[in-house]
Amino acid sequence: MTASYKKAYPFEVSPQSVDFNFQITLSSLTALLMETASKNAEENGFGTRHLREGSNTWVLLRMAIEMDSFPKQFEQIYIETWVEDIGRVSTTRNFHIKDRNQNTVGYATSVWAMIDYNSRKPQDLLQLGNMQRFATGEKVPIEKPVKLKEMKGRLTDDFKAKYSHIDFNRHVNTMRYVEWISNCFTPDYYNRKKLKRFDINFMSEILFGDPIQIYLTEDEDNDTYFFEMCSQEKTSCRAKLVFEEQ
Amino acid sequence: MTASYKKAYPFEVSPQSVDFNFQITLSSLTALLMETASKNAEENGFGTRHLREGSNTWVLLRMAIEMDSFPKQFEQIYIETWVEDIGRVSTTRNFHIKDRNQNTVGYATSVWAMIDYNSRKPQDLLQLGNMQRFATGEKVPIEKPVKLKEMKGRLTDDFKAKYSHIDFNRHVNTMRYVEWISNCFTPDYYNRKKLKRFDINFMSEILFGDPIQIYLTEDEDNDTYFFEMCSQEKTSCRAKLVFEEQ
Repeated sequence: MTASYKKAYPFEVSPQSVDFNFQITLSSLTALLMETASKNAEENGFGTRHLREGSNTWVLLRMAIEMDSFPKQFEQIYIETWVEDIGRVSTTRNFHIKDRNQNTVGYATSVWAMIDYNSRKPQDLLQLGNMQRFATGEKVPIEKPVKLKEMKGRLTDDFKAKYSHIDFNRHVNTMRYVEWISNCFTPDYYNRKKLKRFDINFMSEILFGDPIQIYLTEDEDNDTYFFEMCSQEKTSCRAKLVFEEQ
Repeated sequence: MTASYKKAYPFEVSPQSVDFNFQITLSSLTALLMETASKNAEENGFGTRHLREGSNTWVLLRMAIEMDSFPKQFEQIYIETWVEDIGRVSTTRNFHIKDRNQNTVGYATSVWAMIDYNSRKPQDLLQLGNMQRFATGEKVPIEKPVKLKEMKGRLTDDFKAKYSHIDFNRHVNTMRYVEWISNCFTPDYYNRKKLKRFDINFMSEILFGDPIQIYLTEDEDNDTYFFEMCSQEKTSCRAKLVFEEQ
């Protein structure tokens, strides 16, 4: 195996990516994971730049992140990434997040599909012959992204998808969902608790102008929270967050 | 003058920073300017990391951006920055944005103050003896940031400051104001018009949980828009955007 099958990308945690505690936000961390995935896919010949020639694009289906600690402002981190497997309908990409001394601070794992940019229909990944040789089979030592069931609790937020929420795929960006989920907790809660594990499932796209409702179910005894995000009677996204004492 | 007085930082326009047109958003561009300012200040010994030892921090008072074109996804750009002048209450930092061939794509200029992180009181910049020698006197070929007058038009948005809006200074982040302004235009408008110049003035902080009202006054004949953002009867921020035909 050569370096391109498994590669670490360096990042410095910028002041624009941290919260009031000088700690990287979950959405900024997600953005770095997406950026790492994008860079690695581009370098290996199956990034959106190459796919676009055939009018295909990548969409995230599920992701899980488990963190021992959240890096602080100005910290140097390394995100190592590789493709675990590739099937007809989806591929698994893993991440190992390390500190400046190469100690583990967390892991993430993600499942992706390829769709046609115009028809929005799923495409056969095995047509990307080039990509198959990058499947290393190597797992991460955390549970795979959980498939979440319907948990439509109380309505906590209700608004419309705006310009800044929409990305190059013309739908609401992953980071925005993560931001909206993060916003359901107070600074006081973040002072007391630490996010241990985050699972997110994407089921249907939200486009510009679509209404969004966010529902929340709490299991406070277990520091566990379930989110259901809906648009026009359809579930767009589900998420589960597990916190622990600081 | 050595390189540290005036230095260019390279960036690649990431997929996470572009809009539905694959073009860097105004808020992502603002984030890159802030990151450039932060990096340069850190390198020269008057960044927040150094200031924090004396419990001071930088806050942006006014900024103006003029763009010939907005860089696209995966484009390599360079943001050159330097300090123009430094007085007791504020300092001017300029930016020259260039493409991969070192051609100009835009300019920005910004005015900053230093406050005490705990008392929120303005501090005397001349106490930063180290910083004064970085004042180059060099201007940018665009008008200085305009001081905007009250223009309280129609209410276009009304919400509260949430967790993801608050940064390391414990107040609403510059990028969020820019996002909220950008969200008052539709994708159709962005397809027809191109932002030429952006001015923003910051007057008072917005803290977690504060209510925010956004007012808009349009001068459509001149493609000019004025924003007034208020919280608890006080104006927090004003902005002016001038568009032109694509």
